[in-house]
Parts: sequence; C-alpha cells; structure tokens
Amino acid sequence: MRFSKGRSFLFRVPEGEELLEFVNGFAKRHNVLIGTVSGIGSLRSPKIGYFDEAAGGYKVNELRGLYELVSLSGNISLKNGEPFAHIHVALGGPDGSLHGGHLVEGEVLVAEVFIQELLGELLERKPQGKGLALWEAKE
Amino acid sequence: MRFSKGRSFLFRVPEGEELLEFVNGFAKRHNVLIGTVSGIGSLRSPKIGYFDEAAGGYKVNELRGLYELVSLSGNISLKNGEPFAHIHVALGGPDGSLHGGHLVEGEVLVAEVFIQELLGELLERKPQGKGLALWEAKE
Amino acid sequence: MRFSKGRSFLFRVPEGEELLEFVNGFAKRHNVLIGTVSGIGSLRSPKIGYFDEAAGGYKVNELRGLYELVSLSGNISLKNGEPFAHIHVALGGPDGSLHGGHLVEGEVLVAEVFIQELLGELLERKPQGKGLALWEAKE
Repeated sequence: MRFSKGRSFLFRVPEGEELLEFVNGFAKRHNVLIGTVSGIGSLRSPKIGYFDEAAGGYKVNELRGLYELVSLSGNISLKNGEPFAHIHVALGGPDGSLHGGHLVEGEVLVAEVFIQELLGELLERKPQGKGLALWEAKE
Repeated sequence: MRFSKGRSFLFRVPEGEELLEFVNGFAKRHNVLIGTVSGIGSLRSPKIGYFDEAAGGYKVNELRGLYELVSLSGNISLKNGEPFAHIHVALGGPDGSLHGGHLVEGEVLVAEVFIQELLGELLERKPQGKGLALWEAKE
Repeated sequence: MRFSKGRSFLFRVPEGEELLEFVNGFAKRHNVLIGTVSGIGSLRSPKIGYFDEAAGGYKVNELRGLYELVSLSGNISLKNGEPFAHIHVALGGPDGSLHGGHLVEGEVLVAEVFIQELLGELLERKPQGKGLALWEAKE
C-alpha cells in the first residue's frame, strides 16, 4: 500500500514512563493513525515476547536490570479502531550481548523516538485465527 | 549523495513468501530503483551471512525454527541493471537471544515492511575485487 | 517536537574511516543540525558502550575482528553548539551471535548510511546530572 508523508516527530520520552504505553498514547494524542516508529535509548526491566506458532501466542521473557535500547523498529496502524504501535526491540546487557523480540513492556531511562506519520487508506489489524492480528496482505 | 523523496510503501508480505526475493520483486514491480527498507515480523528457518574478508565471501549460518524478526534494515539500489535489496536482520529465538547478519533467505510467517523510495542520480553496485559489490564512496 | 523534512542522504563511507567520527563530520560539512541516521555494513574492532546508571557513565566493551553491522540507529542534534550523532549498533560475529550497544568507535570496512535531515526548532543535548546529555523531554 502506498502512502504520502505526514508529520515527523522526534522527541525524548520522560524517564519512568512505560515505553509502549507512551508511544500508543502519543499516537492517540496526536492522532497518528498510520506511521513508522524507530528509536534508541536505555530501558529498565524490559519484557519481550516471542511468538510461539504452536501455542498461538507470545512467550514472554522478562529481563532484569538496565539494557541499552539498541534498536526499536515498528509501525503504527489501527486495532479495534484506535492507533496501535507494533514494536520490536534489540536490547544490550552490560557485557554487550543482545536479547530482543516483540516489545511487551519496558520502563524508560532514556528513549529518543522518531515517528513518521503516513497518510492514506487506513491499515487495520484483524485477528487471523493464529493468535496474530494482521493487516490484509496487499501491495 | 543527496536524494529527494519518492513514494512510501508500508505493507505486509504474505505468509510463505521468501522475504528477500519478495522485496526484490516488489522493487521491480513498482520500479523502485533507490530506497531504504525497514521492517519487523517473524521468519522461519532464516539463513544469515557473515562477510569473511579473508575468504572474500559470505559464511552462511542456517537457523532452525521460527525467529522474531527484531530488525530489518537496508537499502535498494541497482546491481546488474536491476533493483537489488541489501538487507541485514536481527533475529530473536524463543529465549530472546539474538542472532543476525546479512539476510540470505527467510520464509515469512509475518513481515511488515516499509520502503521509502529515493529519487536522484542512480546508485549502482559494482564488484570491488574483495567479494563485495559496492557503490562508489562519495558524499 | 514536530519537524518538517529536509534533505535525504544515502552514501557509502569509505573503507578505513572511523564511523562515528565520519558521521559527525558529514553532519558538520553538510550542516545537518537535526536528523535521523540508519545504516548497515561491516565494522572492524568496534567498541560499544553500556550505560551504567550506578557509575554514571559508559562501560566500554571492545570487540575484536570483523563484525556485520546488523543495525545502526540514531539521531543527530546539537551538543555544545555542534551537530552530534547519537548512534546505537547491533553487530554480528562469524557464528551469527549479536553484540551491541552505544557506538563508541568502529573502523569501516563497509558502511551504507542514510541520513534524513529534519527542520524545525533546534534540539540540544544538555547534561542531566547522571552522566547523560539529553534533550528536554517534550512532545
């Protein structure tokens, strides 16, 4: 699907916020219905999900302590009629080894986030019967 | 090199497609000659490359099972006169540990991909005599 | 903070350059004061930082040999009145395992970098009394 460019936001999330909730709230407050999200920073006690196809749901790994937010990649679209951010993260520990997956939760020490709004036909997530809520697959 | 912005595409790749082949095909079908690519999702049995300078080629690591596609980063330019996607990926296993490198192959369970077309002087990959095909290094 | 789009740059950094220094120099030469940075490639002997909150500074891990630059994510803003790139990287070893964190240093074998300039009110990093230099947290 083809979109035109909307607004561009670059901002720091305040310390102590829960990152995923903050991004979803930002999208709602600013009425960003479609977009891309990226960022870097440092998160406390992040929880990351691994989609287990056989189980039809996410296995959640809870990390302890502070992690470098090495990459944050994702998008914003509609789910149940509201803006919804789908975000994956790579996280670095004290020795530099990386963990990551689907962002379930993470408390912000630092998060510098870029959101690029896209304008066009709405993209909506709908249950696909596998435990996933996806857009229609369409170029 | 400086470019102006072309079209923006955000889409889901159908389940079962081979991701790299799909992105290359998408670029050809839509005539995207230069651009950036990013995305997230979940891949089955990905193969990732590590460039071994001494050997002058890629060592390929084959992963088994399903991995979170934690980050997909890359670009599109010309190689042998056709659009060519150069993509690196980070992949998360069930325990959240990450593997990654140059994307050689991966079957899509889910892939949500963003392509930003760039317009300007063409960028072309040419063999550099080290086993790499690169653009001219030029600001 | 909301920005409009400036120039878009996609380029290859010459082999042998120190990556962080090159990106900072590029931003100065082209007068990019605010922007986002992404990229992929292959780095020699990268040094990556982990922010240690208790110590109020970065612990640096030095990696040896050649690593795939699996992701490079970050931004450009002002620090001490000059363009300053804040970059995080994920790096893949020969067996595909990933390390990463805050980019401190890395010699380029290959680096294909995309910089998107943003235009608007300047973002400036200021010491926050924790060993971090951050923007004001403001939507």
